[in-house]
Amino acid sequence: MTAAPHVGRLAAGPRGTIADVPGVGVGHATLADGDLQTGVTVIRLHAHDPFLHKVPAAAVVINGFGKSAGLMQLNELGVLETPIALTTTLSVGTIVMAQVRAAIAAHPGLARTTTTVNPLVFECNDGYLNDAQALAITEAHYLQALAAAAPEFARGAIGAGRGMSCFGLKGGIGTASRLTGNGPGNWTMGALVLANFGQLETLTLAGRAAGPPLALRLAARAAQAAAPQRDQGSIIVVLATDAPLDHRQLRRVATRAAAGIGRTGSYYGHGSGDIALAFSTAATVPHDAPHPVRDTRVLAESRLDPLFEAAAEVTEQAIIDALLTAETVTGFAGHTRYALADLAPDWRELIR
Amino acid sequence: MTAAPHVGRLAAGPRGTIADVPGVGVGHATLADGDLQTGVTVIRLHAHDPFLHKVPAAAVVINGFGKSAGLMQLNELGVLETPIALTTTLSVGTIVMAQVRAAIAAHPGLARTTTTVNPLVFECNDGYLNDAQALAITEAHYLQALAAAAPEFARGAIGAGRGMSCFGLKGGIGTASRLTGNGPGNWTMGALVLANFGQLETLTLAGRAAGPPLALRLAARAAQAAAPQRDQGSIIVVLATDAPLDHRQLRRVATRAAAGIGRTGSYYGHGSGDIALAFSTAATVPHDAPHPVRDTRVLAESRLDPLFEAAAEVTEQAIIDALLTAETVTGFAGHTRYALADLAPDWRELIR
Amino acid sequence: MTAAPHVGRLAAGPRGTIADVPGVGVGHATLADGDLQTGVTVIRLHAHDPFLHKVPAAAVVINGFGKSAGLMQLNELGVLETPIALTTTLSVGTIVMAQVRAAIAAHPGLARTTTTVNPLVFECNDGYLNDAQALAITEAHYLQALAAAAPEFARGAIGAGRGMSCFGLKGGIGTASRLTGNGPGNWTMGALVLANFGQLETLTLAGRAAGPPLALRLAARAAQAAAPQRDQGSIIVVLATDAPLDHRQLRRVATRAAAGIGRTGSYYGHGSGDIALAFSTAATVPHDAPHPVRDTRVLAESRLDPLFEAAAEVTEQAIIDALLTAETVTGFAGHTRYALADLAPDWRELIR
Amino acid sequence: MTAAPHVGRLAAGPRGTIADVPGVGVGHATLADGDLQTGVTVIRLHAHDPFLHKVPAAAVVINGFGKSAGLMQLNELGVLETPIALTTTLSVGTIVMAQVRAAIAAHPGLARTTTTVNPLVFECNDGYLNDAQALAITEAHYLQALAAAAPEFARGAIGAGRGMSCFGLKGGIGTASRLTGNGPGNWTMGALVLANFGQLETLTLAGRAAGPPLALRLAARAAQAAAPQRDQGSIIVVLATDAPLDHRQLRRVATRAAAGIGRTGSYYGHGSGDIALAFSTAATVPHDAPHPVRDTRVLAESRLDPLFEAAAEVTEQAIIDALLTAETVTGFAGHTRYALADLAPDWRELIR
Repeated sequence: MTAAPHVGRLAAGPRGTIADVPGVGVGHATLADGDLQTGVTVIRLHAHDPFLHKVPAAAVVINGFGKSAGLMQLNELGVLETPIALTTTLSVGTIVMAQVRAAIAAHPGLARTTTTVNPLVFECNDGYLNDAQALAITEAHYLQALAAAAPEFARGAIGAGRGMSCFGLKGGIGTASRLTGNGPGNWTMGALVLANFGQLETLTLAGRAAGPPLALRLAARAAQAAAPQRDQGSIIVVLATDAPLDHRQLRRVATRAAAGIGRTGSYYGHGSGDIALAFSTAATVPHDAPHPVRDTRVLAESRLDPLFEAAAEVTEQAIIDALLTAETVTGFAGHTRYALADLAPDWRELIR
Repeated sequence: MTAAPHVGRLAAGPRGTIADVPGVGVGHATLADGDLQTGVTVIRLHAHDPFLHKVPAAAVVINGFGKSAGLMQLNELGVLETPIALTTTLSVGTIVMAQVRAAIAAHPGLARTTTTVNPLVFECNDGYLNDAQALAITEAHYLQALAAAAPEFARGAIGAGRGMSCFGLKGGIGTASRLTGNGPGNWTMGALVLANFGQLETLTLAGRAAGPPLALRLAARAAQAAAPQRDQGSIIVVLATDAPLDHRQLRRVATRAAAGIGRTGSYYGHGSGDIALAFSTAATVPHDAPHPVRDTRVLAESRLDPLFEAAAEVTEQAIIDALLTAETVTGFAGHTRYALADLAPDWRELIR
Repeated sequence: MTAAPHVGRLAAGPRGTIADVPGVGVGHATLADGDLQTGVTVIRLHAHDPFLHKVPAAAVVINGFGKSAGLMQLNELGVLETPIALTTTLSVGTIVMAQVRAAIAAHPGLARTTTTVNPLVFECNDGYLNDAQALAITEAHYLQALAAAAPEFARGAIGAGRGMSCFGLKGGIGTASRLTGNGPGNWTMGALVLANFGQLETLTLAGRAAGPPLALRLAARAAQAAAPQRDQGSIIVVLATDAPLDHRQLRRVATRAAAGIGRTGSYYGHGSGDIALAFSTAATVPHDAPHPVRDTRVLAESRLDPLFEAAAEVTEQAIIDALLTAETVTGFAGHTRYALADLAPDWRELIR
Repeated sequence: MTAAPHVGRLAAGPRGTIADVPGVGVGHATLADGDLQTGVTVIRLHAHDPFLHKVPAAAVVINGFGKSAGLMQLNELGVLETPIALTTTLSVGTIVMAQVRAAIAAHPGLARTTTTVNPLVFECNDGYLNDAQALAITEAHYLQALAAAAPEFARGAIGAGRGMSCFGLKGGIGTASRLTGNGPGNWTMGALVLANFGQLETLTLAGRAAGPPLALRLAARAAQAAAPQRDQGSIIVVLATDAPLDHRQLRRVATRAAAGIGRTGSYYGHGSGDIALAFSTAATVPHDAPHPVRDTRVLAESRLDPLFEAAAEVTEQAIIDALLTAETVTGFAGHTRYALADLAPDWRELIR
């Protein structure tokens, strides 16, 4: 496959993934069996237990047609205290329970001598390719994905992305990274998206209207035309950075995901849960504060622009990554979503 | 027991409960067995299927240290589409799955030919009286509570309120109602609270500092002094009305719960998930819109004050109701929370 | 000048301006005299007094580095009650007072027998081309712009847009419209923007990276290179529609402006006040409610997508309009902002 | 006059005013001449120029029926950069311009080589006692109040509070303070309120229903009964602390003002602009960041409860202070608001 188009002005990090932020890892558990095309993806925040070593974080709801868990407490306290899990809509409750059980196992004092835990689970609806009503995801899938979390990880039609659709094509997991510059301000911004949104006719690839030619090819391919997709189904954008940002600044960073989504042709459809979360690994917040007052470091506000630019770019790039790395999948009721790479082996012909 | 003090200026409805709003019903499933002191409470919105006949609603987060499910979509779309469930913190995922399975059973097209469902589950942490780590709540408890939902229902240490603590005393489920006036503007406002918050020393009962005398009695009663409670643990306030209000107006109504909570002596403690939800039964919003444009009715904005006053009063009254109707419970690890009624058989002596 | 590129899929209305929404008019007062390059633009909501006949509205803050007046009450009550005024940052207070005095003149009972008035004033910072410290705007400019409001109006370097910069080029007032379809759902969405944002290197014109070639031409033109512009300075997006939407739905519409802004290459810079307001002219809300309950009509939620798509398109189109219609202006301290049309008489050569 | 009742559990600071927070000062400019009963109050944040030395701050809108200026940017950037001004509703624009002109005078590079300034002006409507339409406030009043700002200051019917009404009685400026404890966690929380809200029948004084007896006395006093006041007209609560809190934590602190307001009997009336702002003087944020990353200190989240309790108490106490220190005022059109102290020389008889 031809290398993906590079969008924007900033350079990518060495891996070109969210794992360019040191400590971040990603793991998947995938079901790909007939009517069941679904899974779980887990983002590990750092090498330690996030309940004991929380990270500053903030989430922004661009369009709230979604069932994600954990955002209220995240935005009240400004920290993440679990790995980030992504899965299919109707299984959020199952993964919440998996995170609860994992936290109990690791922390015997949970809900007894200390607080409870705030599960963080994102979702998109894979009901076109996956038999969502089968509720095939189990708590074991969460543990499997968590155990697999590593800096090297697969993308495309895998993990939570297995059954996802994007612009009427096959979507799924995408990732990208950007470096903001040189010297002491050379921060890294990484993104992982679960892309399950968009309407084919509006697809914009690196600024070009790639939707109409792809729609023609799709119609030719699918004798019985594949189901069109409205701009719905949700996109989850997770942004990681090593820049020292506090909750308010991370909220500002997360807001910039909306620019990246918009550049792909989306208008944040009514039925879409479009949510962005940003976290910083620059320092952790201890569960048990050893001192009443904590020393910390925050980036000067006037230095945020490169991170904002990076957040917008990395979101668009990660969506493109999901579209280009996903493979064609046939699943529930014989439904098929074609990979962009199947319809256009060289994407460059789409955007001349 | 002496009748509870009536707070505020407005008259209560005939039942003095949330069920004074026609169609609303409440049911419980309760576990009360040694270390397990917990349960589920369900509020039925009306006599019909709320997925097909949604109701306008809005939720307000006063303090977001909590794990409730469903608020994001509720506030984006402005409607409730399931019964409201309340339970113990670590079991939110289980009840989410119970609502999912119930919706699938009732709607074969769910996540296939139509949307998914947005579960609505509130929680408080009953980990002092209940062995929260046992995760004793099952999906069957949701169905049991839903089946039991009726205009007549028990209060106090029952359902989701079984293991809850309030101001260091026994808390749980409380309810109240107010009528806003006579004639065409005679709306009803009902409340149901899950009260699990507050610090004894600050307890204010009908305006009087009831905390200090109760603290003395509690210390005398409990040879091994009962664990003090900081202003944490959460309170959920559900407000129902028959007034024709839209989402924005219901958000304004829900905000007034904060006044009622404040009047009981709470300062919305750091560790408390203090959330208010308001819904209107005046009209329903159909799942499948038969027409592009829907006729509806909304209250003139200048007529909201009686409803605001009612919302504040009914919240305070429902918290008092929880405190006065709860019974003493001994549960997990032999922990005991004493009923206010046990410490002060006639509450009037506390507030002279 | 070559006709502007048409972005997106939807057709424009007959005028291609915000005035395609019946009743909406725009007027300007412009100062263009040496160091003073500034002005006021007013959007008339309909033909009647908006204090007596309010319109449903909602505003969304994409980035809040700005000093606009009136948004808090707008979002609490869900209505607009004055014309919308746009001006230079440091003169917001002056225009607030102009709106106050106009309301007093029209309503002798204001703040006596009835409420006060909620001025609505947006701003961007034109301090590069205009001597902002001169505070040259007077209340008379507001009245002049209001008196001039009409369905036919000028765009570009005029009114509040006179001194504005956009992507390091001359910015100002732009406008556009879209029709959502045929038949009963053929709503109109119009936009007016005050465009004063963006960094030249990131400028994306109809999807193409137009910034780099323009930067070269600009450097060649300006012996003493013009001051670069970071992605700051603000953009105000006003969206008008004749679709029957309530406050919550208009908030959702306004959110879609972020997609349009993002498509032009902006990442919502740190120093930018990026704000979108949407209002509906389908019905008005009377100041003095004749009845306790008001009959109204709202669009079915599932019909919102065409309006969302229109909101994103019309925002991008209006920004392009501002860039293409603005003329080169030299102002404060001899600063010059070149018109895109001066640097590239045929914009098509930029986006091959 | 009898000393005011002390509400809550925490001790007051030595002054019992917001100036117990070191560096904070308050000044007034008052018009008290026939139909003109109005003014300006200014809160100085510290001894230095707040534009150069900004302070962390956050604002919360409890009910948004108000016209205050500056909250959007305050909550985006998390800092205050001007003194806090309070005045009458229709004069907000005038005071905004006064702050603009003061900033220009102090900072020649404003809007040229550096940013513009974000004025922060709160307001309540004094239109019952003051001829609001006269627009009698001038920019000079702001400068006069600012120049007068000092740790010792008057309260009651003075400055911005001159024409304000509260629970149908005379309201105005009130202030109070609380200390959170001993040792290193002995933070100070101060409040200043502009109290112009509430309905007499619901007035609760230190927990007792003081409204009804006062209503009887008021009716007897005013042959032609004074105009009743609905729960509208607004209350502004400014909270200052020396605890090291960031924006998110200050937002949480400001939220607790709602508990204090609720305890006085208010239900946050429809027509009321109920807004709370909290700022910390523990450290300042420099306008020109000398380094890309700034070292700072923040309180451990689990230590917030004493500050929350203090915020609720100090708000209620400051409202009581306004009611008890205000004098009877006759103003516009001969309207009179009676002082509580006139109706009940010893308030203790009201709350037996």
